[in-house]
Amino acid sequence: MIKIIVDCFGGDHSPEANIDGAIAALRNFDDLYIILTGDEQTLKAALAEREYPAGRIEIVHASQVIDCNDRPTDAIRLKRDSSMMKAIMMLRDDDSIAGLVSAGSTGALVTGALVRVGRLAGVIRPAFCPVLPTMDGGVVGICDSGANVEVKPDMLRQFAVMGSIYMETVYGVKSPRVALLNVGVEAEKGDTLRQEAYKLLQETENLNFVGNMESRDLLSGKYDLVVCDGFSGNVLVKTTEGTALELLKKLKNSIFSRTIYKIGALFMKKMFADMKAFMDYQNYGGSVLIGTSKVVVKGHGSSKAKAIEKCIEQAYRMETGAIGPRIETELAKYSHYDV
Amino acid sequence: MIKIIVDCFGGDHSPEANIDGAIAALRNFDDLYIILTGDEQTLKAALAEREYPAGRIEIVHASQVIDCNDRPTDAIRLKRDSSMMKAIMMLRDDDSIAGLVSAGSTGALVTGALVRVGRLAGVIRPAFCPVLPTMDGGVVGICDSGANVEVKPDMLRQFAVMGSIYMETVYGVKSPRVALLNVGVEAEKGDTLRQEAYKLLQETENLNFVGNMESRDLLSGKYDLVVCDGFSGNVLVKTTEGTALELLKKLKNSIFSRTIYKIGALFMKKMFADMKAFMDYQNYGGSVLIGTSKVVVKGHGSSKAKAIEKCIEQAYRMETGAIGPRIETELAKYSHYDV
Repeated sequence: MIKIIVDCFGGDHSPEANIDGAIAALRNFDDLYIILTGDEQTLKAALAEREYPAGRIEIVHASQVIDCNDRPTDAIRLKRDSSMMKAIMMLRDDDSIAGLVSAGSTGALVTGALVRVGRLAGVIRPAFCPVLPTMDGGVVGICDSGANVEVKPDMLRQFAVMGSIYMETVYGVKSPRVALLNVGVEAEKGDTLRQEAYKLLQETENLNFVGNMESRDLLSGKYDLVVCDGFSGNVLVKTTEGTALELLKKLKNSIFSRTIYKIGALFMKKMFADMKAFMDYQNYGGSVLIGTSKVVVKGHGSSKAKAIEKCIEQAYRMETGAIGPRIETELAKYSHYDV
Repeated sequence: MIKIIVDCFGGDHSPEANIDGAIAALRNFDDLYIILTGDEQTLKAALAEREYPAGRIEIVHASQVIDCNDRPTDAIRLKRDSSMMKAIMMLRDDDSIAGLVSAGSTGALVTGALVRVGRLAGVIRPAFCPVLPTMDGGVVGICDSGANVEVKPDMLRQFAVMGSIYMETVYGVKSPRVALLNVGVEAEKGDTLRQEAYKLLQETENLNFVGNMESRDLLSGKYDLVVCDGFSGNVLVKTTEGTALELLKKLKNSIFSRTIYKIGALFMKKMFADMKAFMDYQNYGGSVLIGTSKVVVKGHGSSKAKAIEKCIEQAYRMETGAIGPRIETELAKYSHYDV
């Protein structure tokens, strides 16, 4: 059995979306077992209204909820009986639990995971690695997308190694094409950080480093993983999401502005629905935190059941793909000279 | 007369687009005078085929062309008779010339402008400030979008002051709402650079600093100017352009994939054309280099006549709006303690 713990009181649509996502995930994998944390009464009542594989789900009571107003450091100290912190502590203490999924406060989750769960051997800093859909129907990973706003060249190398293993393990990408986010494609482009990272990436074995990438090529399908500091990675991901959403909104407003456009749109109903689904991050799961000693997946705050289901699938695949040991083996090959 | 010099041998569609853009600009402003640099025979022949206000255009011969393979430092030393370098030297030496427009090599233009033309008094480093269209029909400036990949807090403050004056002078925005690009909106977000810049921006007089902005809100219309280091600014602009282009391409491919979609699209022809025009950077001119002692505008490499015309308009408005003296006056109020 692969045991995953799901924080049921984090995210805009919790606990319903989290519960529904968990049940859907249980149907996808016969050897999956799920622990739900949060208010027992609420969770029991919610389960009572649903059909689910009863032998593979359990509830662990937690009386508190961490919200976005809680400072991360306070949250982990003062809200020990919250659905998130209880899940984190169980993840740390119970060897039989493989991973954790939460759509709650990012800061509290990262701090809690780092302080309580800890890192894999050799990892300088864990990093977030969400994926975005590419135009050729695949996905591209972005590592780091915001866990570390200040980084060093050796950390970028680790992001590359960990992200590459992640794309292979969870998405089945063979020898992922890894690029360094930069302001131009030439080797000498960018600041000192990028220039030094470029050299390190070039000399890293078992890594298919294909050079620098300009951000306009993110969705082109030419790359499987983009390596960046958490600041520019955050800009990269949020700009892509923001631009896509704004354009979709503009398209919708334009259609509703004239009757003739509305008529035209009737012919294209399915096409617009497909476009919307393509751009909907709910279909692509969450941001995996790679490098912690156990699997941690952060769902988007607005995760619905589909997104939670995908997050659990990501955690499941990381565990069954033995991502932890693989990362430790690979990182042991390099000394981290600038830590 | 406002004299602007146009490098006619830079950009994918040069010299035709550059010449046509110059002629169009001359029709917009009666007190505009344009000098075209480049191969005299070619330019003369091109002008002979066109109608133009003959008394307000002149040709200055240049025998060489800088291409993207030329290293910037080599270009400014070795290609002194190129259309770009000749324009830069004339800009420096001729007091009657107000500004320069080029769609040639960015590196050569920046290096040439910095080394040969120099900076306004008090400017640490000039910065690029392109604009993008917002969803409410306005524009948002991004400063710096790539001239400086490594910056200090005080430079970010200067980008804010210069960019704010630019948005007011060229786009008529009263008291531009200035935001700092960051990974979250709270004051304490981001790295040391952002935290220190935030404080500086808060205490800057005559600046309408509205706080941090997450990149997903770039096109929302809530901000008039976004301040950032050149690395993340470059990511911000190129990701927006890249996402918009990829989605437009996907929309087009989807429409052509089924007959019924093609029929629907017939009803929406004008709408799609409007969407395309909205997203076409050709309509928004070039990246102005703010902070050089004379006006320098960099057109996109793929600039067509419309884009060149807009670039010339930008240069014209910067000059007639006396942007140089205004920037010098404003910057003189602050000491640059971390230069």
